[in-house]
Amino acid sequence: MKAYKDMSREELLNEKEGLLKRIEEYRAMNLALDMTRGKPSVAQLDMNNDLFENLSETGFKSVDGDCRNYGIPNGITEVRELFAQILDTDKDKVLVGNGSSLNMMFDALMRAVVFGEHDSDKPWSQEPKKKWLCPVPGYDRHFGVTEKLGFELICVPLKDDGPDMDIVEELVKDESVKGMWAIPCYSNPDGIVYSQEVCERLASMKTAAKDFRIFWDNAYVVHHLYEDEALQAKIPDILSLCEKAGNPSRVYEFASTSKITFAGSGLAVICANKENLDYAKKIIGVQTIGANKINQLAHIHYIPDIKALKELMNRHAAILRPKFEKTLEILERELNGTGAASWRKPYGGYFISVFVYPGTADKVVSMCKELGVAFTPAGATYPYKNDPDNSNIRLAPSFPTVEDINKAVEVFAVCAKLTAIDKILEA
Amino acid sequence: MKAYKDMSREELLNEKEGLLKRIEEYRAMNLALDMTRGKPSVAQLDMNNDLFENLSETGFKSVDGDCRNYGIPNGITEVRELFAQILDTDKDKVLVGNGSSLNMMFDALMRAVVFGEHDSDKPWSQEPKKKWLCPVPGYDRHFGVTEKLGFELICVPLKDDGPDMDIVEELVKDESVKGMWAIPCYSNPDGIVYSQEVCERLASMKTAAKDFRIFWDNAYVVHHLYEDEALQAKIPDILSLCEKAGNPSRVYEFASTSKITFAGSGLAVICANKENLDYAKKIIGVQTIGANKINQLAHIHYIPDIKALKELMNRHAAILRPKFEKTLEILERELNGTGAASWRKPYGGYFISVFVYPGTADKVVSMCKELGVAFTPAGATYPYKNDPDNSNIRLAPSFPTVEDINKAVEVFAVCAKLTAIDKILEA
Repeated sequence: MKAYKDMSREELLNEKEGLLKRIEEYRAMNLALDMTRGKPSVAQLDMNNDLFENLSETGFKSVDGDCRNYGIPNGITEVRELFAQILDTDKDKVLVGNGSSLNMMFDALMRAVVFGEHDSDKPWSQEPKKKWLCPVPGYDRHFGVTEKLGFELICVPLKDDGPDMDIVEELVKDESVKGMWAIPCYSNPDGIVYSQEVCERLASMKTAAKDFRIFWDNAYVVHHLYEDEALQAKIPDILSLCEKAGNPSRVYEFASTSKITFAGSGLAVICANKENLDYAKKIIGVQTIGANKINQLAHIHYIPDIKALKELMNRHAAILRPKFEKTLEILERELNGTGAASWRKPYGGYFISVFVYPGTADKVVSMCKELGVAFTPAGATYPYKNDPDNSNIRLAPSFPTVEDINKAVEVFAVCAKLTAIDKILEA
Repeated sequence: MKAYKDMSREELLNEKEGLLKRIEEYRAMNLALDMTRGKPSVAQLDMNNDLFENLSETGFKSVDGDCRNYGIPNGITEVRELFAQILDTDKDKVLVGNGSSLNMMFDALMRAVVFGEHDSDKPWSQEPKKKWLCPVPGYDRHFGVTEKLGFELICVPLKDDGPDMDIVEELVKDESVKGMWAIPCYSNPDGIVYSQEVCERLASMKTAAKDFRIFWDNAYVVHHLYEDEALQAKIPDILSLCEKAGNPSRVYEFASTSKITFAGSGLAVICANKENLDYAKKIIGVQTIGANKINQLAHIHYIPDIKALKELMNRHAAILRPKFEKTLEILERELNGTGAASWRKPYGGYFISVFVYPGTADKVVSMCKELGVAFTPAGATYPYKNDPDNSNIRLAPSFPTVEDINKAVEVFAVCAKLTAIDKILEA
């Protein structure tokens, strides 16, 4: 396939004609497809329908006592131990919340804004200006949290091994830069895995703000697409790296079971070193008597150890993998060599991120919508919903069926090609 | 029985001698009793062990759709309808959270501090001074929330029909007074029920702060001790009262099932008028994708309607009532007529509040503790843990057995009498 930019005007018009015919064929199908949402499919959820069955057989007791009453504010020991294994950390660094890790991130940042961190001179709300680093493309809800809480959001480009550390190290010389988002394992949406070197540089870099924090959202830490361990990402424990580097309070780590059991009704955790966690608990202890321990007990009854977890994740992968592979197959078949789009092959996580021809992402999404195929709005993966290149589009293959993906991604590819040709012809 | 203050020195010394003998008898018993905690007893919790059984039979569907996936941020309609019935309001005014209503109160106040209310000129954090009215005696965790968030706490005495409204109406002329705590139905710890008149005055009073808020913690709205409806408190719907009075945004109302199903693992709700709720949702929608809907589904499956709820609450009452009656019986038998203590008879809620002889509450609690009987620390029912009269002690009869209560309250009464006599003899 000749790249579009190397084609003559005539060749482009010829290619366009073929694409327009296909568009009319899709239009005639009256499609109603949705690839917007990174949510588990019904088949995945169905696997977990027994989560609460026979819960009463546990006697509602954890090693810490009766889970039906007040108490155990850190979460039950068994769950803290399981997450410690998942995150390669210590159970004493883990605090269990309710179902939403996003909620725990919001609350952690809210605490910093209202009270400051344990090593702050003052509450962050009293800083004349506060900025936050946002690796891009990234997760719109992350950006929403920091935007809502009054941070100026600074984009940092993501490379194949994580955020561009030369840029990060430069930006953190500004003392109004208070922190940074990170999805280190199978990033949303690119599926990028941070390298050991990037993690070490993040842990050891000099920051002008002494209370600088990385919000380490380890959302997809066990969410591999392949059972072969050689294909499974393994990132280092950032808490130990920070400790070794002499920056022990630099990181809050988060994880949840939203894409393991039931989305939004699972367990979420925050992990941090002792100083951060003790400080947070003083505020959390005023905010609540504790999270839902019955749900914790049900989870540990259902997923008693890391082996059970791995088996469950393999079953998720078996459902997800064909959807990802179908998406990639069509992207490759339709777009390879055209230069109209580029993408990475993710080995885990929930998304495939496509960079369409610069300046056309909004057009591609709206054209697909017209044909009855919904994608995440262009720009959503950037702070302020503003993708400066108007190029990135997030595909979410988890929820639709393989058949629907087949059709939806074809439509996507045809629209991406057509808009690219139009853009080139315009120039 | 002659009141202590009317006794001669000799009579008092004589009485004291008898009490000291009893103290030694209790000491010899090596008691280990606990009346500190307002938590449900094991027998109450046992009633609910089936809460999650057969949950999968629901198909995990609410009228809003699949509860296993993301979505339905306001909570499922069935739960909002049930709480609307409980609180005599409309389901559109109800937003369902996770298990802790305290958490919802903290978050609501946090929002006001960081962002202001919809009718504020600025975030409350930017107010030079902010004050909060605290009816006393009250709930220590309420006071803790407002103290942590930087409010100056102002005590308002509670009368038999609610807070002293003459005082409240005077205090709210100060524009730095931003709001007020209220437990309108069976207050913690006195079991006081706000009268219609008090509710109306709260709804209609003129406040200098245009963004004044009442945090209406309707924690015990269905927690009656008696099945006879004539003995059951009924308070008006404060949201309609405020609306009628032209102050529609004055109130946030809260409730939970912590003392209906499982403490801390039930459902909590916030209720408010459209302006308040829409405003809150804009922030909550950034904070989280939604609360645990599986737990909501389990609850509505277990408690499908108000009739089922009433039956369950009657069963709770059957367990709680003898404990309250035993406590009151002993207080009456031991203390009536002595003038050493006073108390109210509650018809619901979780506590009995005793006012011991002024200046002796700390002494009574520590003396009981020495004898192996734990009560809530003196002062806990006042802001800053400071009871200016050093007189109020909260008894929590819900958790211990009737036998334990029998002994614990006897010890309490004897210690209260002894300290009263010592105080009178000192004078």
